[in-house]
Amino acid sequence: MSILAVGTVALDSIETPFGAEDKVLGGSATYIAFAARYFTPDIRLVGVVGSDFPEEYLTLLRKSGIDLRGLEIDPNGSTFAWAGRYHYDLNERDTLATHLNVLQTFDPIVPEAYRDSRIVCLGNLDPAIQRKVLEQVDEPELVVCDTMNYWIENTPDSLRETLALVDCLIINDAEARELSGEPNLVKAARVIRGMGPHILIIKKGEHGALLFSEDQIFSAPAYPLEDIQDPTGAGDTFAGGFVGYLLHEGTQSPESYKRAVIYGSAMASFSVERFGPRRMVDLTDSEIHARVESFRELSAIPAVTPIYSA
Amino acid sequence: MSILAVGTVALDSIETPFGAEDKVLGGSATYIAFAARYFTPDIRLVGVVGSDFPEEYLTLLRKSGIDLRGLEIDPNGSTFAWAGRYHYDLNERDTLATHLNVLQTFDPIVPEAYRDSRIVCLGNLDPAIQRKVLEQVDEPELVVCDTMNYWIENTPDSLRETLALVDCLIINDAEARELSGEPNLVKAARVIRGMGPHILIIKKGEHGALLFSEDQIFSAPAYPLEDIQDPTGAGDTFAGGFVGYLLHEGTQSPESYKRAVIYGSAMASFSVERFGPRRMVDLTDSEIHARVESFRELSAIPAVTPIYSA
Repeated sequence: MSILAVGTVALDSIETPFGAEDKVLGGSATYIAFAARYFTPDIRLVGVVGSDFPEEYLTLLRKSGIDLRGLEIDPNGSTFAWAGRYHYDLNERDTLATHLNVLQTFDPIVPEAYRDSRIVCLGNLDPAIQRKVLEQVDEPELVVCDTMNYWIENTPDSLRETLALVDCLIINDAEARELSGEPNLVKAARVIRGMGPHILIIKKGEHGALLFSEDQIFSAPAYPLEDIQDPTGAGDTFAGGFVGYLLHEGTQSPESYKRAVIYGSAMASFSVERFGPRRMVDLTDSEIHARVESFRELSAIPAVTPIYSA
Repeated sequence: MSILAVGTVALDSIETPFGAEDKVLGGSATYIAFAARYFTPDIRLVGVVGSDFPEEYLTLLRKSGIDLRGLEIDPNGSTFAWAGRYHYDLNERDTLATHLNVLQTFDPIVPEAYRDSRIVCLGNLDPAIQRKVLEQVDEPELVVCDTMNYWIENTPDSLRETLALVDCLIINDAEARELSGEPNLVKAARVIRGMGPHILIIKKGEHGALLFSEDQIFSAPAYPLEDIQDPTGAGDTFAGGFVGYLLHEGTQSPESYKRAVIYGSAMASFSVERFGPRRMVDLTDSEIHARVESFRELSAIPAVTPIYSA
């Protein structure tokens, strides 16, 4: 019952119309792990930080039950740092700075004790780095992967190599269109699934998510939140909730993927309620369950009787 | 069992990446009526055309069972004409020309036989014209209204007067944000419902629709179509299916509004499959029912059991 969360561990500088904070604990591996740990006790993290990484963040991650034996602390560098500013409507953001720092020389070493991880969740990283991790694990039941426009545009061949090894790709709608060259998302999904991932999840932010698996399409709503503080990490939190729930349920089927998409959506809807990962450290089971039930109420279609033309 | 469809009757020139056609039968009243007539035999139309309006279109409308006693034929003018071009992804369009023609002097006269209409569906028109229609009907059970950014920006006071008389407003997400001054759609909905309409439907194109009624929010998916020929009239078709189904069901409740949103969405999903209103003239009851069931499969969340933290 183990999940390997791979990705960045970052210090974020975030500006939204509702506030600004520096050196916020962030990164894809962080958000994946924070969400997944509500579903299983065995969350393993592979990533790298620099000598400037605050001890209190290491403590917070450990206290959350996240296994940090795979987190390299590079004494000669600084932690990956990202700075971004969200627009008024929170649907768009400008990246103000990206300092790769220790990520530039990151050569992931997966601890021996992690080789048997059942689900591997690859946060957004250089596709070559993602493959290096996959080479160091035995046969996981599921490999889930995120990527972004940068890799689609700059390392398309390497990305293809990684996609061939992936069971489930999670990307947003713009990335799906760019990766496939198809504006129509149904056609785009077919093209992308032809590259390897038999499951595709297209995230649409405030519009929810689409799941393509076998011959089914599932449309998940977004939770209509009135107060969004900070969308940072929502996509990674989604991925963490998705893999966490799947491992918890212990089965893989079109039905369990649908449920997992709802759990992922629920976890993401919590994450955006506060700055950084703050909301993710103290959720309760009943809060999570109530939010999942809200998704059901939000999208349930009451029974209909057939109409007959006049 | 009667619906009064009010709005434009137009000759459209449409360009999409998949073709181009001139003098296509269009207009909001046309699409509303074409969709609603699958649900009730008594569809009444109020609008105006010019002397150039093709006889074959009048025949088509009549053959579809639409009562045209309220369609004025102005011998001194030309029919309202709209020309638009859709972009590659079909989610955006440029309006190339708008010739108001006979609409400029349109002073709607509602025939005496229409005064008892049970549902009035006001397509996008000058809000003052929309009010003139409402003044000429007895007490309808439901007044549904569409509008657009032009009236929000140019006749805000007149629009407010109309909204105070409306039960249900159907607009898109950009219009909801502009009308309310709120980027958050949940907050926007509260502001707009304070203006009069106790039901608000926010259309989001390829992302579905949100329904706000009483203290409920309902999120309807969009049907994932692979081949979209022409999005023209999709919003009006949605409105026609919505009012048609509501009249057919004969009750008004948060549950019936949800069902009506799905019927509206289903009708709109048919409409975009062909140029102009072509797909709307020969649908069958079983096609409509099957499409509605597809919406249910698309968004049904399989039962979940609560999770418990690790």
